[in-house]
Amino acid sequence: MAREQGPAIDAGELQDLIREGVPLVGSYGVTVEALGRGTVRLRMPYRDDFVRPGGTITGPALFGLADVALYGAVLSAIGRVELAVTTSMTINFLRKPQPGPVVAEARLLKLGRRLAYGDVLLFAEGVAEPVAHANGTYSIPPDRPAV
Amino acid sequence: MAREQGPAIDAGELQDLIREGVPLVGSYGVTVEALGRGTVRLRMPYRDDFVRPGGTITGPALFGLADVALYGAVLSAIGRVELAVTTSMTINFLRKPQPGPVVAEARLLKLGRRLAYGDVLLFAEGVAEPVAHANGTYSIPPDRPAV
Amino acid sequence: MAREQGPAIDAGELQDLIREGVPLVGSYGVTVEALGRGTVRLRMPYRDDFVRPGGTITGPALFGLADVALYGAVLSAIGRVELAVTTSMTINFLRKPQPGPVVAEARLLKLGRRLAYGDVLLFAEGVAEPVAHANGTYSIPPDRPAV
Amino acid sequence: MAREQGPAIDAGELQDLIREGVPLVGSYGVTVEALGRGTVRLRMPYRDDFVRPGGTITGPALFGLADVALYGAVLSAIGRVELAVTTSMTINFLRKPQPGPVVAEARLLKLGRRLAYGDVLLFAEGVAEPVAHANGTYSIPPDRPAV
Repeated sequence: MAREQGPAIDAGELQDLIREGVPLVGSYGVTVEALGRGTVRLRMPYRDDFVRPGGTITGPALFGLADVALYGAVLSAIGRVELAVTTSMTINFLRKPQPGPVVAEARLLKLGRRLAYGDVLLFAEGVAEPVAHANGTYSIPPDRPAV
Repeated sequence: MAREQGPAIDAGELQDLIREGVPLVGSYGVTVEALGRGTVRLRMPYRDDFVRPGGTITGPALFGLADVALYGAVLSAIGRVELAVTTSMTINFLRKPQPGPVVAEARLLKLGRRLAYGDVLLFAEGVAEPVAHANGTYSIPPDRPAV
Repeated sequence: MAREQGPAIDAGELQDLIREGVPLVGSYGVTVEALGRGTVRLRMPYRDDFVRPGGTITGPALFGLADVALYGAVLSAIGRVELAVTTSMTINFLRKPQPGPVVAEARLLKLGRRLAYGDVLLFAEGVAEPVAHANGTYSIPPDRPAV
Repeated sequence: MAREQGPAIDAGELQDLIREGVPLVGSYGVTVEALGRGTVRLRMPYRDDFVRPGGTITGPALFGLADVALYGAVLSAIGRVELAVTTSMTINFLRKPQPGPVVAEARLLKLGRRLAYGDVLLFAEGVAEPVAHANGTYSIPPDRPAV
């Protein structure tokens, strides 16, 4: 019962998995701030190489954060299934964040046997209006161990 | 006349701009392989930190390549307007590439005064079937110098 | 002040505009159930020609509802600007609704001078889990009267 | 051998299936103009109720055409599997077509066992520049008869 309500992976394990399993985005220093069943909040500190012309944060850094946030939301619901992979992702850039930390809030909107779908809001830390909105689908491998 | 047909930025300048202007993706070592007016082909060498669980290339590396490919296609049509920014991007991951170089072929499908739209096919080098397909919109700043 | 909080168009006017201005979807019999500033809830009754193989509702009917819901959310924020047009829309179909009424809940996530962006959740009436999720961008014509 | 090259459904059968299986879009009078294996060209005549403010064609009509075009491209590769359903679709509106016939050219970019992905260009008949570009994924039911 509690199992249905709490996350199926713990925050420390998810954070390690992001850092070690996907080294490119893992190197961004993302931390898990909160974790529920099907929801996650991540924080990405600013790094000098995230800048782009105009003095804002480059899209691929925001995309990388959104992608691992959705990965976290999926694993929070199905447990440690590392081979879950993104099949599609759409990101809309809404405002240009100043250089600084970015927070991602992801939620699952569907968890099927083979596909999970959710969306992610990204915020410049401390600012109420989102800087980007992403949504995407993860494919869940058929031979995963029962959760 | 020739100007209408050739690219509005040269390949070396575009390559430098990608490497210096957007250091995150710039550090991936992307090269400009071909450039037309509204079309570009880029190549991204493999880097160890692009790996993800399953031994394939992580989505954000492919997204970063697609994003700069579309940036290149836009600049090939309007010239060096560094402040052109992505407003939205959708990427579909179709096949899992083996670790190795990835080639991006981008084309513009619309060039308006304020918005440019195009799509990008990504290929594992030497393989005919695409590994991903992306499409996106760039916003062109209103005060750019006439091209 | 009150003006900042209430919708910039009233529900009856929006409903008429949907029915008359866009006759294709207008003919679906969509009603405005609730309207705030930047939010709207619409209801689409079932019609026999919405069926598709498998006994569910065809995607284009759901897309049409999502599109006018986002249109309503935009007009609820900027007033009666009929020439606001969709520039892009992404829809993910999550569950197959039974034949029956569908409810759309749209919200704006960004309102700029030229572009508005938001998303829409679609529900089979009375069922908590969404049947589809859409997001999209509307272009706002530059010469609209001040609101 | 020939079977690998020709379409897995014939044009007349596909046209009937569109008209009868999905009556909403079927009623638009779409015709199959060309059909290959994984490619299709459809034509949609103009209908008075496709108009929207600004004197152009309403987005949902274009979406419906894109959706059945992708459906046709999928069936051209796997045969008559009526229960193939759209799981996601993105459409970008690039230019405002005048009232008149619209032509859709769809191609598959991936055909897997469970998912097919492709894109669609839409043109005002006789005009070279596309009015819209769509891409989407179809889910293929697991228990379909072998093709």
